Amino acid sequence: MNKSENNWIAQRLVIIGIGLIGGSLALALRKASAVKQVIGVCQSEATRELALDLGVVDECLTDPVAAVAGADVVVLATPVTTIGSMMELIAPALDQQAVITDVGSVKQFVVKAARASLGEHMARFVPGHPIAGTEQSGVAAAFSGLYQQRSVVLTPTAETTDDALRRVSQMWQLIGAKVQTMSDELHDRILAASSHLPHMVAFGLVNTLGEDSNSSEIFELAAGGFFDFTRIASSDPVMWRDIAISNPEAIYNSLAAFRQRIDKLMQLIDAKDGAALADWFSSAKSFRDQAVRNKNNQSDK
Amino acid sequence: MNKSENNWIAQRLVIIGIGLIGGSLALALRKASAVKQVIGVCQSEATRELALDLGVVDECLTDPVAAVAGADVVVLATPVTTIGSMMELIAPALDQQAVITDVGSVKQFVVKAARASLGEHMARFVPGHPIAGTEQSGVAAAFSGLYQQRSVVLTPTAETTDDALRRVSQMWQLIGAKVQTMSDELHDRILAASSHLPHMVAFGLVNTLGEDSNSSEIFELAAGGFFDFTRIASSDPVMWRDIAISNPEAIYNSLAAFRQRIDKLMQLIDAKDGAALADWFSSAKSFRDQAVRNKNNQSDK
Repeated sequence: MNKSENNWIAQRLVIIGIGLIGGSLALALRKASAVKQVIGVCQSEATRELALDLGVVDECLTDPVAAVAGADVVVLATPVTTIGSMMELIAPALDQQAVITDVGSVKQFVVKAARASLGEHMARFVPGHPIAGTEQSGVAAAFSGLYQQRSVVLTPTAETTDDALRRVSQMWQLIGAKVQTMSDELHDRILAASSHLPHMVAFGLVNTLGEDSNSSEIFELAAGGFFDFTRIASSDPVMWRDIAISNPEAIYNSLAAFRQRIDKLMQLIDAKDGAALADWFSSAKSFRDQAVRNKNNQSDK
Repeated sequence: MNKSENNWIAQRLVIIGIGLIGGSLALALRKASAVKQVIGVCQSEATRELALDLGVVDECLTDPVAAVAGADVVVLATPVTTIGSMMELIAPALDQQAVITDVGSVKQFVVKAARASLGEHMARFVPGHPIAGTEQSGVAAAFSGLYQQRSVVLTPTAETTDDALRRVSQMWQLIGAKVQTMSDELHDRILAASSHLPHMVAFGLVNTLGEDSNSSEIFELAAGGFFDFTRIASSDPVMWRDIAISNPEAIYNSLAAFRQRIDKLMQLIDAKDGAALADWFSSAKSFRDQAVRNKNNQSDK
């Protein structure tokens, strides 16, 4: 609280979209006393009331254009497919010096939308993706610790200034996140494999079982492990539609790579090649066990 | 303890293979005072000592032939690919009235092996599969509650007598399991979908990511959900090799059905058909949410 105003990440920080992601960012920044004022923007009256009751924001508005006037940092936390139209709407009202960032889980799509609508503000746009979340959604699920020790990927464009990038990096680091930068293209390829593909596979597996003529017996006899395995197939279908249509090439390529492995496995089973099957299963076990060890080492640091 | 000897499930129950499954069965039956004497059979001296120290069995032998002499119930709890040779070995030493059962996760393969080796004892052979387990294996992980509220599938053959079936059903029911019977062919089809397919898919997913040129970044940026999702890809590769080569047709067919769904998904993504994608994801979510509700209702009963 003794922090001088010069150390603030923002005097007026506007977060458009107050759900789990935007709400947790607001809570964390307020807890860290990193911002003078946090303004939320959201259409639902119930969410606005909740955000105020829970102390998530200082103020909550419905009009994004009014909200961004005078803002020095603007965070777009709406669904990825709506970020483009939101940028078009607010661009004329943005301050010359305002830094803009987003939290969308797909980056090339967002950058393309930004190029089409942000104009000169493109220099202060820092595309971002905090890799965090829970099974819940909505502001009621928001909590200030969501980003502690979590990765945030920033994908600065050719136009992004160093100053804007530094500002957004500092914002995330202040609330405990580990920031890394990479190209939007690499981000989309990596996330297609690490996140989008597992979700696609889980949806596909559950549909295979659900459409089987013995589906009730199959689900009845499924063990607890099956329900853990397919938990992500209960994720929000609309969010996953948005991701699928906004990162289609990378997801398609990941699915094609996965299908090659399934084809190979089918060949090995058809050939009853026990030795090759054991190698193939061992290889997967080694990959995962190593990844778990690396993950644990990371969080020990 | 006041139980009359007539109510015992067995006077001398022999469990060949004292790991998690066999050991937990022994513990549960002893706790229920359902057997006069439980004899374990196992090759490893360390396991024999541990089984005695932990009070899992009354006695632990290395020689299955010596163990089954005089036994009224024999449970085969060795890996599924070794059950056939074990049956060949013990068949000549089995009592005329001995009831034989197994706990293998594949049933047609075991029944075929039994037909080749059990001879007249086939009438008292009751193929079985308790659908229970944990991530651990080995006798140290055994506990008496493992089968509480868990499903046990019995797949009596044309030769199996009602009396033998009743005896084995009672054994599992006494320790809290829910017993159901079905054909070995249906069992193998259902388990191929409910258990074997999810494991194959998890192994395939992890291999896809592990073999990617960006695999270290992919695993680094994978969220916690990914590690839950792929936990079953850290299962024992040798056990899964055995399952894959002993239930090949049903697993192959399940993989083919799954591959059709992946193909369809790739088509929808290629066509950027947002409406059809949302339907497809919603359908998976509904199947799973319904299965979870049914599961919870079952355990409330």
